[in-house]
Amino acid sequence: MTDARYERSRAAVFEAVCSVLVAEGFSGMSVDRLAAESGISRSTIYRNWPDMGALACEVFDELLHRDPIPMGSDPSAALHGYIADYARRLNNPTYTAVMVALIEGAARDEAFAEVHRRAFSQTSGRAAAIVRQAQQQGLIDSTRDIQQCVEDLMAPFLYRRLVTQVRITRVQVDDLHTELLERWA
Amino acid sequence: MTDARYERSRAAVFEAVCSVLVAEGFSGMSVDRLAAESGISRSTIYRNWPDMGALACEVFDELLHRDPIPMGSDPSAALHGYIADYARRLNNPTYTAVMVALIEGAARDEAFAEVHRRAFSQTSGRAAAIVRQAQQQGLIDSTRDIQQCVEDLMAPFLYRRLVTQVRITRVQVDDLHTELLERWA
Repeated sequence: MTDARYERSRAAVFEAVCSVLVAEGFSGMSVDRLAAESGISRSTIYRNWPDMGALACEVFDELLHRDPIPMGSDPSAALHGYIADYARRLNNPTYTAVMVALIEGAARDEAFAEVHRRAFSQTSGRAAAIVRQAQQQGLIDSTRDIQQCVEDLMAPFLYRRLVTQVRITRVQVDDLHTELLERWA
Repeated sequence: MTDARYERSRAAVFEAVCSVLVAEGFSGMSVDRLAAESGISRSTIYRNWPDMGALACEVFDELLHRDPIPMGSDPSAALHGYIADYARRLNNPTYTAVMVALIEGAARDEAFAEVHRRAFSQTSGRAAAIVRQAQQQGLIDSTRDIQQCVEDLMAPFLYRRLVTQVRITRVQVDDLHTELLERWA
Protein backbone atom coordinates (compact mmCIF):
# COMPACT_ATOMS: atom_id res chain seq x y z
CA MET A 1 0.00 0.00 0.00
CA THR A 2 1.34 3.48 -0.85
CA ASP A 3 1.78 6.00 1.94
CA ALA A 4 -1.11 8.07 0.62
CA ARG A 5 -3.42 5.05 0.51
CA TYR A 6 -2.31 4.03 4.00
CA GLU A 7 -3.07 7.52 5.30
CA ARG A 8 -6.54 7.48 3.72
CA SER A 9 -7.28 4.06 5.24
CA ARG A 10 -5.95 5.18 8.57
CA ALA A 11 -8.12 8.30 8.60
CA ALA A 12 -11.23 6.28 7.68
CA VAL A 13 -10.54 3.60 10.29
CA PHE A 14 -9.81 6.19 13.00
CA GLU A 15 -13.07 7.94 12.17
CA ALA A 16 -14.89 4.60 12.43
CA VAL A 17 -13.27 3.86 15.81
CA CYS A 18 -14.57 7.18 17.14
CA SER A 19 -18.12 6.50 15.89
CA VAL A 20 -18.19 3.00 17.35
CA LEU A 21 -16.77 4.11 20.70
CA VAL A 22 -19.35 6.88 21.00
CA ALA A 23 -22.21 4.61 19.94
CA GLU A 24 -21.31 1.37 21.72
CA GLY A 25 -18.11 1.70 23.70
CA PHE A 26 -15.06 -0.50 23.41
CA SER A 27 -17.12 -3.68 23.52
CA GLY A 28 -18.62 -2.69 20.16
CA MET A 29 -15.22 -2.57 18.45
CA SER A 30 -14.44 -5.45 16.08
CA VAL A 31 -12.72 -5.74 12.73
CA ASP A 32 -16.06 -6.53 11.06
CA ARG A 33 -17.75 -3.51 12.59
CA LEU A 34 -14.92 -1.16 11.66
CA ALA A 35 -14.81 -2.52 8.11
CA ALA A 36 -18.56 -1.91 7.72
CA GLU A 37 -18.30 1.57 9.22
CA SER A 38 -15.17 2.74 7.37
CA GLY A 39 -15.52 1.05 3.98
CA ILE A 40 -11.96 -0.28 4.41
CA SER A 41 -11.50 -4.00 3.77
CA ARG A 42 -11.30 -6.41 6.67
CA SER A 43 -7.93 -7.68 5.42
CA THR A 44 -6.43 -4.16 5.45
CA ILE A 45 -7.70 -3.60 8.97
CA TYR A 46 -6.42 -7.00 10.14
CA ARG A 47 -3.01 -6.36 8.62
CA ASN A 48 -2.53 -2.87 10.04
CA TRP A 49 -4.51 -2.91 13.27
CA PRO A 50 -4.85 -6.50 14.42
CA ASP A 51 -5.28 -5.48 18.07
CA MET A 52 -8.47 -3.53 18.90
CA GLY A 53 -7.04 -2.34 22.21
CA ALA A 54 -3.89 -0.97 20.59
CA LEU A 55 -6.02 0.68 17.91
CA ALA A 56 -8.29 2.38 20.46
CA CYS A 57 -5.20 3.62 22.25
CA GLU A 58 -3.66 4.96 19.02
CA VAL A 59 -6.86 6.89 18.29
CA PHE A 60 -6.92 8.27 21.79
CA ASP A 61 -3.30 9.35 21.50
CA GLU A 62 -4.13 11.20 18.30
CA LEU A 63 -7.24 12.90 19.73
CA LEU A 64 -5.24 13.97 22.73
CA HIS A 65 -2.60 15.67 20.63
CA ARG A 66 -4.74 17.08 17.85
CA ASP A 67 -4.55 20.86 17.46
CA PRO A 68 -2.26 21.58 20.40
CA ILE A 69 -2.44 25.20 21.42
CA PRO A 70 0.82 27.15 21.35
CA MET A 71 1.98 27.91 24.85
CA GLY A 72 3.04 31.57 24.65
CA SER A 73 5.26 33.32 27.16
CA ASP A 74 2.71 35.01 29.44
CA PRO A 75 2.12 32.41 32.16
CA SER A 76 -1.40 33.57 33.09
CA ALA A 77 -2.52 33.51 29.43
CA ALA A 78 -0.83 30.12 28.93
CA LEU A 79 -2.72 28.71 31.89
CA HIS A 80 -6.01 30.15 30.64
CA GLY A 81 -5.35 28.76 27.17
CA TYR A 82 -4.61 25.34 28.59
CA ILE A 83 -7.80 25.28 30.70
CA ALA A 84 -9.90 26.48 27.75
CA ASP A 85 -8.36 23.83 25.49
CA TYR A 86 -8.95 21.10 28.07
CA ALA A 87 -12.60 22.20 28.42
CA ARG A 88 -13.01 22.16 24.64
CA ARG A 89 -11.65 18.61 24.45
CA LEU A 90 -13.83 17.37 27.31
CA ASN A 91 -16.91 18.97 25.70
CA ASN A 92 -16.29 16.84 22.61
CA PRO A 93 -18.39 13.64 23.03
CA THR A 94 -15.89 11.62 20.99
CA TYR A 95 -13.00 12.65 23.18
CA THR A 96 -14.96 11.83 26.34
CA ALA A 97 -16.14 8.47 24.97
CA VAL A 98 -12.62 7.46 23.97
CA MET A 99 -11.28 8.62 27.34
CA VAL A 100 -13.88 6.59 29.25
CA ALA A 101 -13.13 3.54 27.08
CA LEU A 102 -9.46 3.96 27.91
CA ILE A 103 -10.14 4.35 31.64
CA GLU A 104 -12.39 1.30 31.53
CA GLY A 105 -9.86 -0.80 29.63
CA ALA A 106 -6.97 0.34 31.80
CA ALA A 107 -8.53 -1.26 34.85
CA ARG A 108 -8.30 -4.71 33.27
CA ASP A 109 -5.85 -4.75 30.40
CA GLU A 110 -2.13 -4.06 30.88
CA ALA A 111 -1.69 -2.72 27.31
CA PHE A 112 -4.52 -0.25 27.86
CA ALA A 113 -3.11 0.67 31.24
CA GLU A 114 0.27 1.42 29.67
CA VAL A 115 -1.20 3.72 26.99
CA HIS A 116 -3.46 5.27 29.58
CA ARG A 117 -0.47 6.13 31.77
CA ARG A 118 1.51 7.44 28.81
CA ALA A 119 -1.39 9.49 27.45
CA PHE A 120 -2.13 11.09 30.78
CA SER A 121 1.49 11.69 31.66
CA GLN A 122 1.87 13.52 28.35
CA THR A 123 -1.20 15.64 29.02
CA SER A 124 -0.10 16.38 32.52
CA GLY A 125 3.38 16.98 31.09
CA ARG A 126 2.08 19.99 29.17
CA ALA A 127 0.19 21.21 32.22
CA ALA A 128 3.28 20.72 34.36
CA ALA A 129 5.37 22.79 31.92
CA ILE A 130 2.88 25.66 32.20
CA VAL A 131 2.88 25.48 36.00
CA ARG A 132 6.70 25.39 36.08
CA GLN A 133 6.94 28.43 33.81
CA ALA A 134 4.45 30.30 36.01
CA GLN A 135 6.49 29.40 39.08
CA GLN A 136 9.70 30.68 37.44
CA GLN A 137 7.97 33.96 36.63
CA GLY A 138 6.61 34.34 40.17
CA LEU A 139 2.91 33.87 39.34
CA ILE A 140 2.69 30.64 41.34
CA ASP A 141 4.35 30.06 44.70
CA SER A 142 7.56 28.18 43.82
CA THR A 143 7.23 25.78 46.77
CA ARG A 144 3.95 24.35 45.42
CA ASP A 145 4.10 20.73 44.34
CA ILE A 146 3.74 20.66 40.55
CA GLN A 147 1.91 17.33 40.38
CA GLN A 148 -0.59 18.61 42.93
CA CYS A 149 -1.12 21.73 40.81
CA VAL A 150 -1.72 19.54 37.75
CA GLU A 151 -4.35 17.61 39.70
CA ASP A 152 -5.98 20.87 40.88
CA LEU A 153 -6.13 21.89 37.23
CA MET A 154 -7.43 18.67 35.70
CA ALA A 155 -9.75 17.21 38.33
CA PRO A 156 -12.69 19.67 38.47
CA PHE A 157 -13.67 19.52 34.79
CA LEU A 158 -13.14 15.78 34.57
CA TYR A 159 -15.54 15.34 37.49
CA ARG A 160 -18.02 17.73 35.91
CA ARG A 161 -18.03 15.90 32.57
CA LEU A 162 -18.01 12.34 33.92
CA VAL A 163 -20.20 12.70 36.97
CA THR A 164 -22.51 15.65 36.61
CA GLN A 165 -22.31 15.24 32.81
CA VAL A 166 -22.81 18.87 31.96
CA ARG A 167 -20.93 20.86 29.36
CA ILE A 168 -18.20 23.14 30.62
CA THR A 169 -18.95 26.79 29.98
CA ARG A 170 -16.69 29.70 29.16
CA VAL A 171 -17.51 31.27 32.52
CA GLN A 172 -16.39 28.12 34.31
CA VAL A 173 -13.09 28.26 32.41
CA ASP A 174 -12.55 31.87 33.56
CA ASP A 175 -13.62 31.04 37.13
CA LEU A 176 -11.27 28.07 37.44
CA HIS A 177 -8.40 30.16 36.06
CA THR A 178 -9.03 32.94 38.59
CA GLU A 179 -9.58 30.56 41.46
CA LEU A 180 -6.40 28.55 40.81
CA LEU A 181 -4.19 31.62 40.50
CA GLU A 182 -5.55 32.93 43.81
CA ARG A 183 -5.05 29.60 45.50
CA TRP A 184 -1.56 29.04 44.08
CA ALA A 185 -0.23 32.61 44.59
CA MET B 1 -39.64 -18.01 46.06
CA THR B 2 -39.60 -17.21 49.81
CA ASP B 3 -38.12 -13.94 50.95
CA ALA B 4 -35.13 -15.71 52.47
CA ARG B 5 -34.44 -17.62 49.25
CA TYR B 6 -34.83 -14.44 47.23
CA GLU B 7 -32.35 -12.65 49.48
CA ARG B 8 -29.82 -15.48 49.13
CA SER B 9 -30.18 -15.45 45.33
CA ARG B 10 -29.91 -11.69 45.29
CA ALA B 11 -26.72 -11.70 47.36
CA ALA B 12 -25.16 -14.38 45.12
CA VAL B 13 -26.14 -12.59 41.91
CA PHE B 14 -24.92 -9.20 43.21
CA GLU B 15 -21.60 -10.79 44.16
CA ALA B 16 -21.37 -12.28 40.66
CA VAL B 17 -22.11 -8.90 39.05
CA CYS B 18 -19.21 -7.36 40.98
CA SER B 19 -16.79 -10.13 39.94
CA VAL B 20 -17.79 -9.88 36.28
CA LEU B 21 -17.59 -6.08 36.24
CA VAL B 22 -14.12 -6.12 37.78
CA ALA B 23 -12.90 -8.87 35.44
CA GLU B 24 -14.52 -7.88 32.17
CA GLY B 25 -16.57 -4.74 32.52
CA PHE B 26 -20.22 -4.33 31.61
CA SER B 27 -19.76 -5.98 28.23
CA GLY B 28 -19.00 -9.24 30.06
CA MET B 29 -22.37 -9.25 31.85
CA SER B 30 -24.92 -11.76 30.58
CA VAL B 31 -27.47 -14.01 32.22
CA ASP B 32 -25.40 -17.07 31.29
CA ARG B 33 -22.23 -15.63 32.75
CA LEU B 34 -23.96 -14.58 35.98
CA ALA B 35 -25.63 -17.97 36.33
CA ALA B 36 -22.26 -19.72 35.96
CA GLU B 37 -20.60 -17.34 38.40
CA SER B 38 -23.33 -17.30 41.08
CA GLY B 39 -24.69 -20.83 40.94
CA ILE B 40 -28.20 -19.33 40.61
CA SER B 41 -30.35 -20.73 37.81
CA ARG B 42 -30.70 -18.83 34.56
CA SER B 43 -34.48 -18.83 34.94
CA THR B 44 -34.29 -17.20 38.38
CA ILE B 45 -31.96 -14.54 37.04
CA TYR B 46 -34.16 -13.94 33.99
CA ARG B 47 -37.26 -13.64 36.15
CA ASN B 48 -35.82 -11.23 38.68
CA TRP B 49 -33.20 -9.30 36.75
CA PRO B 50 -34.09 -9.44 33.07
CA ASP B 51 -32.25 -6.21 32.30
CA MET B 52 -28.46 -6.29 32.74
CA GLY B 53 -28.26 -2.50 32.78
CA ALA B 54 -30.85 -2.18 35.53
CA LEU B 55 -29.08 -4.94 37.48
CA ALA B 56 -25.70 -3.21 37.24
CA CYS B 57 -27.34 -0.02 38.43
CA GLU B 58 -29.01 -1.78 41.37
CA VAL B 59 -25.67 -3.21 42.44
CA PHE B 60 -24.04 0.18 42.13
CA ASP B 61 -26.78 1.74 44.22
CA GLU B 62 -26.21 -0.84 46.92
CA LEU B 63 -22.40 -0.43 46.90
CA LEU B 64 -22.83 3.29 47.14
CA HIS B 65 -24.98 3.07 50.24
CA ARG B 66 -23.34 0.17 52.00
CA ASP B 67 -22.04 0.96 55.48
CA PRO B 68 -22.88 4.65 55.52
CA ILE B 69 -20.92 6.49 58.16
CA PRO B 70 -22.94 8.33 60.79
CA MET B 71 -22.66 12.08 60.29
CA GLY B 72 -22.11 13.37 63.85
CA SER B 73 -22.62 16.96 64.91
CA ASP B 74 -19.08 18.35 64.69
CA PRO B 75 -18.88 19.71 61.14
CA SER B 76 -15.11 19.38 60.75
CA ALA B 77 -15.18 15.75 61.93
CA ALA B 78 -18.19 15.04 59.71
CA LEU B 79 -16.31 16.40 56.70
CA HIS B 80 -13.22 14.37 57.56
CA GLY B 81 -15.34 11.26 58.01
CA TYR B 82 -17.00 11.81 54.67
CA ILE B 83 -13.68 12.29 52.82
CA ALA B 84 -12.18 9.21 54.51
CA ASP B 85 -15.25 7.15 53.61
CA TYR B 86 -15.16 8.35 50.00
CA ALA B 87 -11.44 7.44 49.77
CA ARG B 88 -12.17 4.00 51.22
CA ARG B 89 -14.87 3.40 48.62
CA LEU B 90 -12.70 4.60 45.73
CA ASN B 91 -9.82 2.39 46.92
CA ASN B 92 -12.11 -0.64 46.56
CA PRO B 93 -11.53 -2.07 43.04
CA THR B 94 -15.10 -3.36 42.87
CA TYR B 95 -16.55 0.04 43.63
CA THR B 96 -14.32 1.72 41.05
CA ALA B 97 -15.09 -0.91 38.39
CA VAL B 98 -18.84 -0.57 38.94
CA MET B 99 -18.54 3.22 38.89
CA VAL B 100 -16.62 3.20 35.62
CA ALA B 101 -19.15 0.78 34.09
CA LEU B 102 -21.91 3.16 35.13
CA ILE B 103 -20.11 6.20 33.72
CA GLU B 104 -19.46 4.30 30.50
CA GLY B 105 -23.06 3.13 30.19
CA ALA B 106 -24.47 6.53 31.07
CA ALA B 107 -22.90 8.05 27.97
CA ARG B 108 -25.01 5.82 25.72
CA ASP B 109 -27.94 4.36 27.58
CA GLU B 110 -30.72 6.52 29.01
CA ALA B 111 -31.57 4.01 31.78
CA PHE B 112 -27.94 3.99 32.90
CA ALA B 113 -27.82 7.76 32.68
CA GLU B 114 -30.86 8.03 34.92
CA VAL B 115 -29.41 5.77 37.62
CA HIS B 116 -26.07 7.49 37.24
CA ARG B 117 -27.67 10.87 37.90
CA ARG B 118 -29.67 9.51 40.82
CA ALA B 119 -26.69 7.70 42.34
CA PHE B 120 -24.46 10.72 42.13
CA SER B 121 -27.08 13.16 43.28
CA GLN B 122 -27.59 10.97 46.36
CA THR B 123 -23.86 10.85 47.06
CA SER B 124 -23.51 14.54 46.54
CA GLY B 125 -26.69 14.94 48.63
CA ARG B 126 -24.84 13.59 51.67
CA ALA B 127 -21.84 15.78 50.91
CA ALA B 128 -24.13 18.78 50.46
CA ALA B 129 -25.76 18.13 53.85
CA ILE B 130 -22.34 18.13 55.52
CA VAL B 131 -21.34 21.37 53.78
CA ARG B 132 -24.66 23.00 54.73
CA GLN B 133 -24.25 22.01 58.38
CA ALA B 134 -20.69 23.40 58.37
CA GLN B 135 -21.99 26.66 56.88
CA GLN B 136 -24.67 26.94 59.56
CA GLN B 137 -22.05 26.46 62.25
CA GLY B 138 -19.71 29.05 60.71
CA LEU B 139 -16.94 26.66 59.63
CA ILE B 140 -17.54 27.38 55.94
CA ASP B 141 -18.27 30.82 54.47
CA SER B 142 -22.06 30.85 54.13
CA THR B 143 -21.96 32.57 50.72
CA ARG B 144 -20.09 29.62 49.14
CA ASP B 145 -22.04 27.74 46.50
CA ILE B 146 -22.83 24.30 47.94
CA GLN B 147 -22.67 22.43 44.63
CA GLN B 148 -19.26 23.96 43.95
CA CYS B 149 -18.10 22.80 47.40
CA VAL B 150 -19.35 19.30 46.61
CA GLU B 151 -17.33 19.33 43.40
CA ASP B 152 -14.24 20.59 45.26
CA LEU B 153 -14.71 17.67 47.63
CA MET B 154 -15.34 14.89 45.15
CA ALA B 155 -13.20 15.79 42.13
CA PRO B 156 -9.60 15.37 43.36
CA PHE B 157 -9.85 11.74 44.52
CA LEU B 158 -11.94 10.72 41.51
CA TYR B 159 -9.22 12.11 39.23
CA ARG B 160 -6.53 10.39 41.27
CA ARG B 161 -8.21 6.98 41.09
CA LEU B 162 -9.32 7.14 37.45
CA VAL B 163 -6.43 8.97 35.87
CA THR B 164 -3.30 8.52 37.92
CA GLN B 165 -4.71 5.21 39.21
CA VAL B 166 -3.00 5.30 42.57
CA ARG B 167 -4.53 4.41 45.91
CA ILE B 168 -5.61 7.27 48.10
CA THR B 169 -3.61 7.45 51.30
CA ARG B 170 -4.59 8.52 54.80
CA VAL B 171 -2.26 11.52 54.51
CA GLN B 172 -4.06 12.65 51.34
CA VAL B 173 -7.38 12.42 53.20
CA ASP B 174 -6.02 14.65 55.97
CA ASP B 175 -4.44 17.06 53.47
CA LEU B 176 -7.64 17.46 51.44
CA HIS B 177 -9.65 18.06 54.61
CA THR B 178 -7.22 20.78 55.79
CA GLU B 179 -6.94 22.35 52.35
CA LEU B 180 -10.71 22.54 51.80
CA LEU B 181 -11.42 24.07 55.20
CA GLU B 182 -8.76 26.73 54.57
CA ARG B 183 -10.12 27.45 51.11
CA TRP B 184 -13.77 27.53 52.20
CA ALA B 185 -13.25 29.54 55.43
